[in-house]
Amino acid sequence: MTETAESVSFDVPSYMRELGRCARQASRLVGRAESGDKNAALYAIADAIVADRVQLAAENRKDLQAGKQRGLDAALLDRLELTDARIDAMAEGLRQIAALDDPVGAISDLNYRPSGIQVGRMRVPLGVIGIIYESRPNVTADAAGLCLKSGNACILRGGSEALHSNQALAGCIKKGLQQAGLPATAVQVVATTDRAAVGELLKLEEFVDVIVPRGGKGLIERISRESRIPVIKHLHGVCHTYIDDQADIDKAVKVAFNAKTQRYGTCNTMETLLVAEGIAERVLPLLGRMYRDAGVELRGCERSRQILNDINAAQDSDWNEEYLAPILSVRVVADLDAAIDHIEKFGSRHTDVIVSENITRARRFLREVDSSSVMVNASSRFADGFEYGLGAEIGISTDKLHARGPVGLEGLTTLKFIVFGDGHIRV
Amino acid sequence: MTETAESVSFDVPSYMRELGRCARQASRLVGRAESGDKNAALYAIADAIVADRVQLAAENRKDLQAGKQRGLDAALLDRLELTDARIDAMAEGLRQIAALDDPVGAISDLNYRPSGIQVGRMRVPLGVIGIIYESRPNVTADAAGLCLKSGNACILRGGSEALHSNQALAGCIKKGLQQAGLPATAVQVVATTDRAAVGELLKLEEFVDVIVPRGGKGLIERISRESRIPVIKHLHGVCHTYIDDQADIDKAVKVAFNAKTQRYGTCNTMETLLVAEGIAERVLPLLGRMYRDAGVELRGCERSRQILNDINAAQDSDWNEEYLAPILSVRVVADLDAAIDHIEKFGSRHTDVIVSENITRARRFLREVDSSSVMVNASSRFADGFEYGLGAEIGISTDKLHARGPVGLEGLTTLKFIVFGDGHIRV
Repeated sequence: MTETAESVSFDVPSYMRELGRCARQASRLVGRAESGDKNAALYAIADAIVADRVQLAAENRKDLQAGKQRGLDAALLDRLELTDARIDAMAEGLRQIAALDDPVGAISDLNYRPSGIQVGRMRVPLGVIGIIYESRPNVTADAAGLCLKSGNACILRGGSEALHSNQALAGCIKKGLQQAGLPATAVQVVATTDRAAVGELLKLEEFVDVIVPRGGKGLIERISRESRIPVIKHLHGVCHTYIDDQADIDKAVKVAFNAKTQRYGTCNTMETLLVAEGIAERVLPLLGRMYRDAGVELRGCERSRQILNDINAAQDSDWNEEYLAPILSVRVVADLDAAIDHIEKFGSRHTDVIVSENITRARRFLREVDSSSVMVNASSRFADGFEYGLGAEIGISTDKLHARGPVGLEGLTTLKFIVFGDGHIRV
Repeated sequence: MTETAESVSFDVPSYMRELGRCARQASRLVGRAESGDKNAALYAIADAIVADRVQLAAENRKDLQAGKQRGLDAALLDRLELTDARIDAMAEGLRQIAALDDPVGAISDLNYRPSGIQVGRMRVPLGVIGIIYESRPNVTADAAGLCLKSGNACILRGGSEALHSNQALAGCIKKGLQQAGLPATAVQVVATTDRAAVGELLKLEEFVDVIVPRGGKGLIERISRESRIPVIKHLHGVCHTYIDDQADIDKAVKVAFNAKTQRYGTCNTMETLLVAEGIAERVLPLLGRMYRDAGVELRGCERSRQILNDINAAQDSDWNEEYLAPILSVRVVADLDAAIDHIEKFGSRHTDVIVSENITRARRFLREVDSSSVMVNASSRFADGFEYGLGAEIGISTDKLHARGPVGLEGLTTLKFIVFGDGHIRV
């Protein structure tokens, strides 16, 4: 199905190439723009979103109606809806991004070398960022704001079900950019739902520096496989909490309960609870009751089923599972080494937690568990750009290169070397 | 042609998978090894290389003889040869790596957040690094040393023409690792010249975290295209020096002469000289004479040929050319903007230099030229890990993500988030 905002079909490869060319051009201007101008644009976009709320809601209704006709489920329709509160939240998010420090141009580590030259590093934008995402239209404002503040141009490709909402937002963004004297093409929202557009975007290595996919695992795997451009991605989160036998029972119960139940559908929610044999009989009955009262289904190893005798048996596949639901797998392990082995074997290198009062074990866990976030005595739900003080996040990377963990403005920039001399030559 | 060190052919995919599996296992041990143990291994490898110099030379002679029979040219044979001085230099290089600070485990930016948790970042190894390189056997010792010091396991795949030399070095490395109590599989040197080994290595995404190719542009392009694993690469260096009309003539002449002639075959050698119209008639005749005396062929634009009337005309293709030879393209440009445009259009984003006394222009050049190194009044030949104080380098990256410019120990590591709480939960 090919549908553009104006329902005109066109040549997708040429269209995408032209977006790429314009983005590259705009990136040079936005990359050197002053902080004040970028902030002015962010405020102007926020104002335009608030001012245009009636029109935004009308366009959003078109998407909602089409979605209902296509039989989208209630959860998807809910995510798609731009309520008054969500429109205000988008504008507020942009103002918050404006208030963050500008990372671009910051110079660090400027030192003289024995040769007499002075060498340092300057933080600079990546250039052009392609973002591919699913139904929620607020991502459009959010991603545009983060890319703009970090001096990057971007090409945004939202879900087809949000086409009208996203195009209406694109109009507000364009107005804001122009008002601040920045190029309108610094943020371009793909105006076709033709699926070929994604494939074409992934081929624009000449114009696009990095791709950030946001959505389900299937989408992200396909994009990683197809893309000729580097991808910053978040595959999945199989997060563990390990309760050590030297844990404080109260803290263990609080942390493990919160990590599972504070929200079920997020990537930093705990999916597997590991409990040291030496503390299992004291801590599991307490937690078991709390999970049961909260409606969490437990799937346990043999030993944990001896202690909590009314729970289901975990299958091998449970240890790899990202439930995103009120389900938790539970395993009793011998000790810290067994816990680290389990996480190494089954984890997704996202966020893993130890609860222990023993500093030596905490230090080993921090050093040896190879995940983007490792925590001591805190809920995995804290793995989040806002909670970490990044101000905002474009996503959480489970890759190792470049950005690892929550990706904020800094993750959308890179460092180049700068050198000062006074006619210095190499001998 | 399939040839192993023992001239036995075998199942390459299984062999490479087994190397991968062992490397992943070793990476956990070497990743948590203490600095002292890693340094002890580096010294022990250095000692083994010096102690085994007779055997190393004998194995190297096998490669040299085979190379002569296969008709390798003199330059390649020279690069292949392990002279006494080169053997000493390899050992000395390893001792220098031992003397560098250990980047692994360093904690930075540890701050309390409003929620009460304390968030910081820890520098950690990437894991397993695959390095694919060409004839020079000293890369084997060098790469092994850098990977080991940065806590990574590595799989090294040298050129087939250096097979015997590389296997002899692998023996020394193994001895050193074992002597220090580290796993011998922390450094594995592929023992087959079967070209399928490279393709198999690029598929080991389960076991290998990053690929570093070192060699000609063809090799690197092929590896980037084929690899399912992220690649840190250096494509080519078309480096520019721009002499501004507010340049100091003496500094301009010194820097531009050095950037071209100090060494011809390196990636940070200047390939194109840009001269502002306002200073061209004063600076080009001086430089023209010096280049002529040094045997450098100049290929100029129309305007530069009016000033230097005995030089060849540059073709369009010259502006993209990495000569790696005593050839230089010369272009007179109107001003700074034209110079930046030229570099944007034809450069390779490696290293670019402005010579100017004007601070505003210098600042603009630093900010706006999107290259891994940008310099003011210094020779592009300084773009080098040693000159920058990185202590060593595994290569120079022209990518933007992760490592940009010279890649030292830090480029072989990444940052993870660490979080401390005291039973903190998200509300």
